[in-house]
Amino acid sequence: MSFLKRYTIQEVKSGMKQYLETASEMYLPGVSIDTVIFSFFKNNLNVLLLRLDDSPYYVIPGGYIEKNENLDDAAFRILKERTGINNIYLEQFYTAGNTHRNDNNFFAETFKKMGIELPQGNWFEQRFISVCYLALIDQTKVNLEPGMFFTECKWENVQSIPKLLYDHNLVIEKAIQRLQADLDQKLIAYNLLNETFTMAELQKLYEAVYQKEFTRTNFQRRMLGLDILERLEKQYTGKAHKAPFLYRFKLK
Amino acid sequence: MSFLKRYTIQEVKSGMKQYLETASEMYLPGVSIDTVIFSFFKNNLNVLLLRLDDSPYYVIPGGYIEKNENLDDAAFRILKERTGINNIYLEQFYTAGNTHRNDNNFFAETFKKMGIELPQGNWFEQRFISVCYLALIDQTKVNLEPGMFFTECKWENVQSIPKLLYDHNLVIEKAIQRLQADLDQKLIAYNLLNETFTMAELQKLYEAVYQKEFTRTNFQRRMLGLDILERLEKQYTGKAHKAPFLYRFKLK
Repeated sequence: MSFLKRYTIQEVKSGMKQYLETASEMYLPGVSIDTVIFSFFKNNLNVLLLRLDDSPYYVIPGGYIEKNENLDDAAFRILKERTGINNIYLEQFYTAGNTHRNDNNFFAETFKKMGIELPQGNWFEQRFISVCYLALIDQTKVNLEPGMFFTECKWENVQSIPKLLYDHNLVIEKAIQRLQADLDQKLIAYNLLNETFTMAELQKLYEAVYQKEFTRTNFQRRMLGLDILERLEKQYTGKAHKAPFLYRFKLK
Repeated sequence: MSFLKRYTIQEVKSGMKQYLETASEMYLPGVSIDTVIFSFFKNNLNVLLLRLDDSPYYVIPGGYIEKNENLDDAAFRILKERTGINNIYLEQFYTAGNTHRNDNNFFAETFKKMGIELPQGNWFEQRFISVCYLALIDQTKVNLEPGMFFTECKWENVQSIPKLLYDHNLVIEKAIQRLQADLDQKLIAYNLLNETFTMAELQKLYEAVYQKEFTRTNFQRRMLGLDILERLEKQYTGKAHKAPFLYRFKLK
């Protein structure tokens, strides 16, 4: 698939021309936002990638900060533009600022192949320091929208992420580390599981985030020791007593 | 004390003139660095503040990123300029980007009082997004240097920090939260205690960082449970057996 399936070459060309003309008026120079959007789906931890036309080049979603916009508000706006969702818990976790982090011409190359020449010294060629945010969302509840300059949004398992443009592999790695830290507290904030869940369901989520297996008894002991779970009384169902206990997060 | 005790008004004036002329050539626009430099001294957690001339205005140390400098390298350079120390563990913990975070004229006002007029639209008046780093250092090993535009460096107990300029109180608050997270791991990296220490010394450090008291037995149980400490055998000293056990961090 190419974005030319969704837009004509003329539309992309004039969209890009307009972007380049207005970007330095609209946005703060030299600072960008990148977002690592995780989902937990069918026991996998996935991350949202965008593809640049029909190239092999993927990136994580990002954007720029309007001149009169708070940094966090820009991150919410960018997330909304790509996923349609609002009011999600977004966590700032890292700011990437190595000098050569966006030294590459793949972006310009890809457009050139379509006959769209980006002028030298254009907006995208400046050095950007990128403030990175992570979110953990329910992927069944979002409407992905790649925007005009990307072809495709896709969910990729964190275990099989290809080589990405820029320093985006590093950024995802740092996002996973941050997700692992204080995961117990994050799960409450992220509201990612159903209101009630089994210990096995919770364990699957931990295993996906930590990318390793836990033994059932150790996991259960550790979770109960955290004092964040409330065990529900079993309802009498008339069935055998095989149904597992259900838990929910304690309200603070 | 005023910086006029260390520099003549002419020196400050020409220093400022040169700074304003060269800043936009030398530094990335719109991005600054702020550093929260903690020390643990006489059982207090202190933070390094700079005073603007003989005004009541304090800030945390900061600076800008050279156009060809990695973000982290700029943070190390700024820390070195203020403290003379190198190779310290610096942790990036937050990027501040609210639109009105540096809306104030105290800086210009203070210089005006000395007869130094900063032109409108000067370097310091732009909107800055600030990448914040924290360090935890041994304050007995540093040589504080306020630089030409500040009068005084001082260590202030985190419990008695005055109202600071910009959003620096918020930045310190966030730094303390980050310091508390994974403190056990940080202490090893920071190399802040002597190589061997008593449980009571360790407890004082935790109490200063968490700003609350722990009971001795609970604290000891928690620390030993972390499996990061190694207890040394008591040396036979010929004295009574009252000497407390010494511990050191386990090497990984």
